[in-house]
Parts: sequence; structure tokens; C-alpha cells
Amino acid sequence: MEDIGKVLSRNLIYRGKILDLRVDNIRLASGRKTMREVVEHEPAVAIIPLTEANEVLLVKQYRYPLDQEILEIPAGIVEEGETFKDTAIRELQEEIGYYPGKLEEVGRFYTSPGFSDEVIALFLAQNLSPSSLEQDEDEDIEVKAVPVKKISALLKDGSIRDCKTFGALAWLLNYLNNN
Amino acid sequence: MEDIGKVLSRNLIYRGKILDLRVDNIRLASGRKTMREVVEHEPAVAIIPLTEANEVLLVKQYRYPLDQEILEIPAGIVEEGETFKDTAIRELQEEIGYYPGKLEEVGRFYTSPGFSDEVIALFLAQNLSPSSLEQDEDEDIEVKAVPVKKISALLKDGSIRDCKTFGALAWLLNYLNNN
Repeated sequence: MEDIGKVLSRNLIYRGKILDLRVDNIRLASGRKTMREVVEHEPAVAIIPLTEANEVLLVKQYRYPLDQEILEIPAGIVEEGETFKDTAIRELQEEIGYYPGKLEEVGRFYTSPGFSDEVIALFLAQNLSPSSLEQDEDEDIEVKAVPVKKISALLKDGSIRDCKTFGALAWLLNYLNNN
Repeated sequence: MEDIGKVLSRNLIYRGKILDLRVDNIRLASGRKTMREVVEHEPAVAIIPLTEANEVLLVKQYRYPLDQEILEIPAGIVEEGETFKDTAIRELQEEIGYYPGKLEEVGRFYTSPGFSDEVIALFLAQNLSPSSLEQDEDEDIEVKAVPVKKISALLKDGSIRDCKTFGALAWLLNYLNNN
């Protein structure tokens, strides 16, 4: 948010599995010294699976940091050697068991620019066909098919508590209105 | 994502200014032992400032974790003793210099449920009037007025690279279509 004058030092606090934590000492343009906490995170993808029957396939899953189950579009971290598109195709099969005949990136954005560099590429997946790929053994995901005509109500009644999913569903309504 | 059987231990790795980092050892229902990295973050708010002239007021600001300027709706962290609404009113004045005559919460969601508990309350602010409150001295924020009719193009051309802003603007288009 501030106009950074100079980075005085970068300090790696933690190097982990899905994230690293860095704390930097900086001097603002105003001359004031302060620090910045930065969570470095691998890139990720999220997918809007839209069926021929005009349903969006959401996943209900337990999220450890929240200690609760929330409703989300399928998503996952980009693994080594994968393109965003590779990850989208893999996650779609692992999480909901479908292969996308048509897959297009519709947006790319940062999830928490105030403290993290995590970026998410958002895809629209159509022409879905059942996939033979098995789910991860530790995955415990329930698929919920939501008719497009019910999305407005979901966005309004607080059922959608994940930011990327809120944005993806609101984007989809506009997309369907204009196409 | 996994079905958690038991939390074996919680370990605080870092206690910071805007976030803490915790690494927990857990046992999955499958019996496999693994760990979870959790970034604990203060709650935040984001505001969609809609003018009488049907413009949305966005802020262009430098984000340290990205080392770049991005376009966002006004937002900020909830300070001690504040309600979400208090924070929305303060941030709107500090970042764009307006006081909201009408302010309603339209959504509340997690920004990165895979690794953080950060929650954001989204508000729609209308009936804006100039505020006397001064901006933070270290703030270096440029306000951009975007006509509602240009939002669709912005969402499509990649100008919006912040997840909450992407969701907020897509939500606004639907809201204006239905009201």
C-alpha cells in the first residue's frame, strides 16, 4: 500500500510444503522504517465445470484452516512441470471425475495481495465427459450440482463463502447473460 | 481437503504484525500422518463505492508481496474494537475520501481457504459524500473512476488481477441487472 523507498533486508522465516514465509525490513519513501510479512505460495487453478444441463458442479470439502466444510469450485495447486491448463484438467478429474472437452482461461488474479503472492488462474470447463482417473485416496469430496438459475440465490443467501467461487459464479452469470 | 482424523500437535512458527503462521501435525482418517500449514490473519473488509454517476471508484496501489501496482476496490484490515461496518466506513474515507450515506454488506468469504483463515466482508457503498478525514501519510493511492458500462470489458481484458475485486465487480453487474 505504501510507496516503498528501499528494501533493507529479506529474511526467510519458514520454508514449507505449500508456502514459505518471508519478513522484509524496508524504508518507506517517507523515510519511516517498517517491515512487510510475505507468504510465498505456489500458483493454483480453479475451474467452473458447466454441464450440458446448465448445472455448475461444486465441491463440498473440509478446509483445515477453517475447520469446516465449504462449497467451492474445483481447484488445486500447480504441480512441478504442469501448465495452468494441465493442472485444471488433472484437478477436474481428481475432484469431480470429469474430463473437459472444452477448457478456456477466463481470468487470472491474486487471492490475498496484501500478504501473499498466490495467483489463481480461473477456467471455464465445458463438454464434460466421465473420466477414468481415480480420486486421491485421502480426498473426501462431495460433488453438488447447482442449476445455473439457482446461482443468484446462492450468492445472496451466504452459501458461497469462498472468494474465488463467489467471483467465478458471479462471472458465469454475466457470461451466460452475454452469450 | 482431507478427512481429518486427529490433530496431533499445533506449533506456532511465527507471531507477526498482520499474520501468524502455525504448522500442525495431524493424522488423517486413512491413518496417514501429515502436516498442515495455516496462516492466521485478521479479518478484513472490501468496499464497492458506487457513485450517483454510475461509476465505481477503484484504487490503484503498490502491493509489496507482488512488487507491482494493481487495481482494487478499497479494502483494509479490521482494527481492534471495530465492527466490519466501522472498518468499511474508515477505509472508504482513508482510501478515496468519501463517506457512505448508504452501506450494506453483500457478502462474506474466505480469500485462501487452502492455507489461511482470512475472511473478507464485502460492502456496497452508495450516496457518497466528500469526507474531511485525512489519508494516511504513508498511503500512496491513486483513485480511478470506472463507468459501470466499462466493467465487463475490464473483467475480460485482464485489467482486474485481484480476486475480491473480480468477484465484487462481477457481483455488481448482476446486482445492477436485477435492480
